[in-house]
Amino acid sequence: MNLPSCQLFEGFSDGHNECFFDFIEEMTCDQGEWLFREEDPAEKLYCIRNGAVELVTSIDNEIELPITILRSEGNYFGTSSLIPPYTYSLSARAYEDTTLAVIHRDKLMAQINQNPELGYIIMSNLAKTFLDRLKETRQEIKIHFKSLIKVMQY
Amino acid sequence: MNLPSCQLFEGFSDGHNECFFDFIEEMTCDQGEWLFREEDPAEKLYCIRNGAVELVTSIDNEIELPITILRSEGNYFGTSSLIPPYTYSLSARAYEDTTLAVIHRDKLMAQINQNPELGYIIMSNLAKTFLDRLKETRQEIKIHFKSLIKVMQY
Repeated sequence: MNLPSCQLFEGFSDGHNECFFDFIEEMTCDQGEWLFREEDPAEKLYCIRNGAVELVTSIDNEIELPITILRSEGNYFGTSSLIPPYTYSLSARAYEDTTLAVIHRDKLMAQINQNPELGYIIMSNLAKTFLDRLKETRQEIKIHFKSLIKVMQY
Repeated sequence: MNLPSCQLFEGFSDGHNECFFDFIEEMTCDQGEWLFREEDPAEKLYCIRNGAVELVTSIDNEIELPITILRSEGNYFGTSSLIPPYTYSLSARAYEDTTLAVIHRDKLMAQINQNPELGYIIMSNLAKTFLDRLKETRQEIKIHFKSLIKVMQY
């Protein structure tokens, strides 16, 4: 895994990257394969090397609501693995045949404990990702709200 | 300001707290007063000492959509001041007469640069807050979605 291509590690120096080479694994998954489900214990973070992954949630365990499709190399997901209570808040499914880098929380945290600067960079990137997603999700609410007003006007 | 009561600093030691005593300001605002508006440059983070603050967004600059009311001591907002591009993503208005602690980004960042461990703690807390808000906002979407289905069934 070429580390700088994972957006979570943006801002790392070459020295920082070296700390990670040993424990990043690679996996492949077939189109339609589930990587994890909402509410599963979250122990792994994933980063796209190639392919695409769809994040979805469900309404009353009945209707599937798509949240986003991650398509770019360096996009990451499974971020709940880095935040207590470490439970995935969405489900993830391969949208096409996909290759992923897999990072285990315990190994990442061991590196951060040795070098808090790494933790600062990672958590800053993570906070930025969450804020971006929050803005997108609020945009969705506005769109839903406008649809509702429109429907009620008929 | 009693620092440990600000949720952004949860996990600080007494030594960490000392770094902050000098530059936290206090301000009061009257019910209905705007603290900042969506899209304003974000340079300050606010933490509630007492009172309540409402966060709102607007749809097409016409309809005001309430997002949340922060009522508890230690709740913080203005978090976009810590994440590029440093632009408030919501508007904030005092929901009642309120006392706030005010933290300027440049001073906070100067402390973090000297001590990355502080930055790691702050950004971890911030990421957790964003993830919690993201989950709440997705819940909202589910509710809106269900309302829409209900309305369309009539």
